[in-house]
Amino acid sequence: MRRAFELAGHGPATGVNPQVGCIILNGHGETLSEGWHRGAGSRHAEVDALAKLAPGAARGSTAVVTLEPCNHVGRTGPCAQALIDAGVARVIYSVSDPGKHSCGGADRLRAAGIEVQGGVIVEQGETFLGDWLVAARLGRPFVTLKWASSLDGRAAATDGSSRWITGAAARLDVHRRRAARDTILVGTGTVLADDPALTARNEDGGLLARQPVPVVVGRRALPTSAALFAHPKQPLFFDGLDLPALLADLHGQGLRSVFIEGGPTLASAFVAAALVDEYLIYLAPTLIGGPRLVLGDIGVSAIGEQRRLSIQSLDRLGDDVLIVARPQPAST
Amino acid sequence: MRRAFELAGHGPATGVNPQVGCIILNGHGETLSEGWHRGAGSRHAEVDALAKLAPGAARGSTAVVTLEPCNHVGRTGPCAQALIDAGVARVIYSVSDPGKHSCGGADRLRAAGIEVQGGVIVEQGETFLGDWLVAARLGRPFVTLKWASSLDGRAAATDGSSRWITGAAARLDVHRRRAARDTILVGTGTVLADDPALTARNEDGGLLARQPVPVVVGRRALPTSAALFAHPKQPLFFDGLDLPALLADLHGQGLRSVFIEGGPTLASAFVAAALVDEYLIYLAPTLIGGPRLVLGDIGVSAIGEQRRLSIQSLDRLGDDVLIVARPQPAST
Repeated sequence: MRRAFELAGHGPATGVNPQVGCIILNGHGETLSEGWHRGAGSRHAEVDALAKLAPGAARGSTAVVTLEPCNHVGRTGPCAQALIDAGVARVIYSVSDPGKHSCGGADRLRAAGIEVQGGVIVEQGETFLGDWLVAARLGRPFVTLKWASSLDGRAAATDGSSRWITGAAARLDVHRRRAARDTILVGTGTVLADDPALTARNEDGGLLARQPVPVVVGRRALPTSAALFAHPKQPLFFDGLDLPALLADLHGQGLRSVFIEGGPTLASAFVAAALVDEYLIYLAPTLIGGPRLVLGDIGVSAIGEQRRLSIQSLDRLGDDVLIVARPQPAST
Repeated sequence: MRRAFELAGHGPATGVNPQVGCIILNGHGETLSEGWHRGAGSRHAEVDALAKLAPGAARGSTAVVTLEPCNHVGRTGPCAQALIDAGVARVIYSVSDPGKHSCGGADRLRAAGIEVQGGVIVEQGETFLGDWLVAARLGRPFVTLKWASSLDGRAAATDGSSRWITGAAARLDVHRRRAARDTILVGTGTVLADDPALTARNEDGGLLARQPVPVVVGRRALPTSAALFAHPKQPLFFDGLDLPALLADLHGQGLRSVFIEGGPTLASAFVAAALVDEYLIYLAPTLIGGPRLVLGDIGVSAIGEQRRLSIQSLDRLGDDVLIVARPQPAST
């Protein structure tokens, strides 16, 4: 299974489809063939592995797959049926398919008399699939909210100036994480105030290979000279703060992750709506005071309503600190 | 010298006088006697060590002292003269005396023909003397500002409720640090809002052996039923925000360290006046939003005026994070 995850890692890490790897073994546990998924529209991992074998060669074999074989016809056929047709005797997988339309592959295999074992090293599997799995389970993109602030929670000085609060290492880290997301979200206020390029750049300012789609939310008019219009990806615009509708729209376009960069109005709306899956909080060792807060009102009037998080990691980045946190499940 | 610092550690760690240790060695480097300072009004370390020797026994000896022997007559005589009178031939010390009235001991010794060497393991010495040394150099108490906040810089929910933002481990850490300070400072607003006991307590709520003197700043009237009136130390009251005068007053009373517990008005005033020597920032993994900020306006209108700090330590305390930071020296 660990080798299957290695294979899965060859596929693209973002987009509509997950990274999946598959190995076909004979009765002696020897590898007959290996396959992986190369992204939406191309062969799924199981079919990729089977296609490398001579007709009939997979009969009686064992398929080791990182994700439960799918049970739906999309742009490719259902993998469960492909395994049945090939005469595979046993299927071992790690993570269950969370999709509404694609799940049920294990049942279909069992109904065909195939021995099926799921949940193998499932923790590694879930970590590996990360955002894709969350997006599939939620039915919406995985939402990351990032901010950079002083230790007293300010994103800028009173006059709005904010260059620079965090240092070079923290800013580079942000760019690296932008590149790993499908979209980057900002409010029109931030576009007007900061004119951000919304690109993912390296330390020399050059563009990274992957770029998130810029998404701008709000009703304020933007000048055509705004830097985001020079973004290599076509920007998307949403004129309201109906966040579930916004996320559903992005999800429908095959965008599986959202990286919110601010400003405070947009960030607060996402927090208040409990639509943030991951927080990236860059804290600079500085104090600013004044009115420019990273978050405004998030609907907490008494301390019992506070939004508890759990800290996933705490690291120094140059002079700065990065806290990665996730919402704590509401206590029952 | 390391042994001398061990001896110094026997003395009281807070109050007007520093912890000092002294060893008298004969010409073969053998210890003739050891002494340390037991607090204001008692014998200084050098005199303590000399007193344990028969008259004349220190002639030609070497005195190893953690702090430059003093040169002034306070409640006890000048140590430099005592060493001269005892016929000591050589004096080795670590940290120079920073006092306006007590310095010059080394010169006085040299003038008497004694061989003097200062600055021995001076870094350890400065760390050891800590707050006392800072207070002596500044001519005012060492000021620690502590706050506990959410990750978005809030000290309470909109309705003022704040129990609890941080967890038990962080709160216990605060009490331990309160006990190590001479005074604990709050504004009248905090007394009215939270009715704090201002005591240093253990995890069972029992009083720790040392208690800081409670100091209340502000003009608002307090009810006689306020918990702070039950504090084992007599509270001090200041009705204005002339912070240098306040600190000078405390210094004049022999109080060498201040632990500011809030609220935001008092804290912001200290930050704005650049009178904070150390920040203890307890960050709880939670978001609160709203108007209850740890700091208000601190006089920063543009980003170039931000108050840069340097992080001394970053630690997890239960679910919380403690950042200890100090002001960065202004760049020249």
